[in-house]
Amino acid sequence: MQKIRIGIVGYGNVGRGAALAVKASSDMELIAVFTRRNPEEIKNPDNSISGNNIPILPVDSAAAMTDKIDVMLLCGGSAADLPEQGPYFASMFNTVDSYDTHAKIPEYMAAVDSAAKKTTAVISAGWDPGPFSMMRTLFESVLPDGETYTFWGKGVSQGHSDAIRRIEGVTHAVQYTIPIDSAVETVRSGERPVFNTREKMKRDCYVVVKPDADITLIENAIKTMPHYFADYDTSVSFISIEEFTKNHSEMPHGGMVLRSGSTGKNKQVMEFLLNLESNPEFTGSIMVAYARAAFKMAKEGLFGAKTVFDIPLSYLSEKDRLTLIKDLL
Amino acid sequence: MQKIRIGIVGYGNVGRGAALAVKASSDMELIAVFTRRNPEEIKNPDNSISGNNIPILPVDSAAAMTDKIDVMLLCGGSAADLPEQGPYFASMFNTVDSYDTHAKIPEYMAAVDSAAKKTTAVISAGWDPGPFSMMRTLFESVLPDGETYTFWGKGVSQGHSDAIRRIEGVTHAVQYTIPIDSAVETVRSGERPVFNTREKMKRDCYVVVKPDADITLIENAIKTMPHYFADYDTSVSFISIEEFTKNHSEMPHGGMVLRSGSTGKNKQVMEFLLNLESNPEFTGSIMVAYARAAFKMAKEGLFGAKTVFDIPLSYLSEKDRLTLIKDLL
Repeated sequence: MQKIRIGIVGYGNVGRGAALAVKASSDMELIAVFTRRNPEEIKNPDNSISGNNIPILPVDSAAAMTDKIDVMLLCGGSAADLPEQGPYFASMFNTVDSYDTHAKIPEYMAAVDSAAKKTTAVISAGWDPGPFSMMRTLFESVLPDGETYTFWGKGVSQGHSDAIRRIEGVTHAVQYTIPIDSAVETVRSGERPVFNTREKMKRDCYVVVKPDADITLIENAIKTMPHYFADYDTSVSFISIEEFTKNHSEMPHGGMVLRSGSTGKNKQVMEFLLNLESNPEFTGSIMVAYARAAFKMAKEGLFGAKTVFDIPLSYLSEKDRLTLIKDLL
Repeated sequence: MQKIRIGIVGYGNVGRGAALAVKASSDMELIAVFTRRNPEEIKNPDNSISGNNIPILPVDSAAAMTDKIDVMLLCGGSAADLPEQGPYFASMFNTVDSYDTHAKIPEYMAAVDSAAKKTTAVISAGWDPGPFSMMRTLFESVLPDGETYTFWGKGVSQGHSDAIRRIEGVTHAVQYTIPIDSAVETVRSGERPVFNTREKMKRDCYVVVKPDADITLIENAIKTMPHYFADYDTSVSFISIEEFTKNHSEMPHGGMVLRSGSTGKNKQVMEFLLNLESNPEFTGSIMVAYARAAFKMAKEGLFGAKTVFDIPLSYLSEKDRLTLIKDLL
């Protein structure tokens, strides 16, 4: 069988995760990576590409390769890259992206949908939006009398880490968002609590500072920072650069979606959890599963912008429908 | 908006659960319940039907009501009822069932599919098969390098409870299947253990006996019963009828699907859990969500036998697609 031919646009953390996921899929092959940087400068630490002689090409060369690539994975950022790249690539290729600016998804979807006249463009297929959204919809549909809770973490928040790094005297920082166990347990017990933000999650910060920095001042600047930290219980630990490099260089994440509901007099709880050692590699894996779906849907003429709500699960699998029904139903 | 008109065939535990779920759905109304028993004899303990003056009719009268019912929920058993009722009702109505004889699903699906020429027939939409199957497919598609584990319980197994009740001297019995915590934790940690049945779950039995019964003999008969108990760690507690009635009359169940996988050098764990105070009411709730899907698919001419793998999540929701995308993506 002909393999599904994949291209990757943007070779940051998610792009590298997607390359690994393509390699792990026996029905796919990676044709090329496209970058806006100088292709010579692309770091390829895990050797996932160069070992296979995959070309790294300037992004402008993609337009000439519409007959060589079945699905393009758009691995750029939601703020600056995807609003432009999403519609641009969807006009030429089947695409998958993990656009995650929740408030702007309808607008983004409309722009991509207009461009995807003869292509299938799966948008917002990371993990939230992504499987977390799927669970919110499934849970609410099955248990209409109930309340849904999403907890994120334990995991690194890039936005909060960046905010700490902007403080004078800080050289390195990482912020972990951590769900509060007692809050999770209350929901699991079938209660339907109303939480404020402080009751739901806390924020742990690990910070490296310049030798002459005033750590009391920095700790106070973090804990009182509006929007980012002031509304949460925040702990700040000052550590050495050695400890930072050794223990805080990975990108773990995860979280859970729970619904505490009732039928008649009975409590019913549904729960979905992710525990990820690598957030970007998992995001890349989701995108690759939806690349398979985009390929199949395009073959059936199901064009336009699609979300995880629109795509039957059988489209995600390497197995054909009857095998799935026999083996996994 | 016109409500979706629901009929229920079979008014046992699942049928009563489905009636409750219809009542909880603002876009549905229950038109009638059909039974093979004498309709006068139907017990209706939770008053979910009689309070609304829903007629309870002989099953033969359904065929004359094809213009009054949009979706028929088939709440009979998989062993004797559904092999006959599934194709029969699918020839006249859109249907949903929770057929759960895993090994015979392909055969059952083919029979229902042949009958569903102008109807949409959703088969095997309980919770396993059902959301558990969906998770197995989603997890495996996203993390091809990994292992999937399904644990059932804590919950009542009717088959095992029946087996105990067949022992001479036993008057009442209930058997709880209980996942072994350490096995679950091993999978959660990202390991991929190979379990035998004894390592994965244990069986706790609560038994009421006749006054003159030999409890040593009965305990031995349970623990050595081939297929049912011999391969498991089984505990047997003899209790009074009062304690049995007070503490062991409910039908809790639940369980979990986990996938322990890897991307590159990183461990990634996906997990889905159900914690149900009422197994049949939850099954009825799943069926009702898929009744909504059957109704929508039939309107679009998507006829034939469908499984949970074939149906996009947006079809399950009361909300329209754009509201879902705005609120839950």
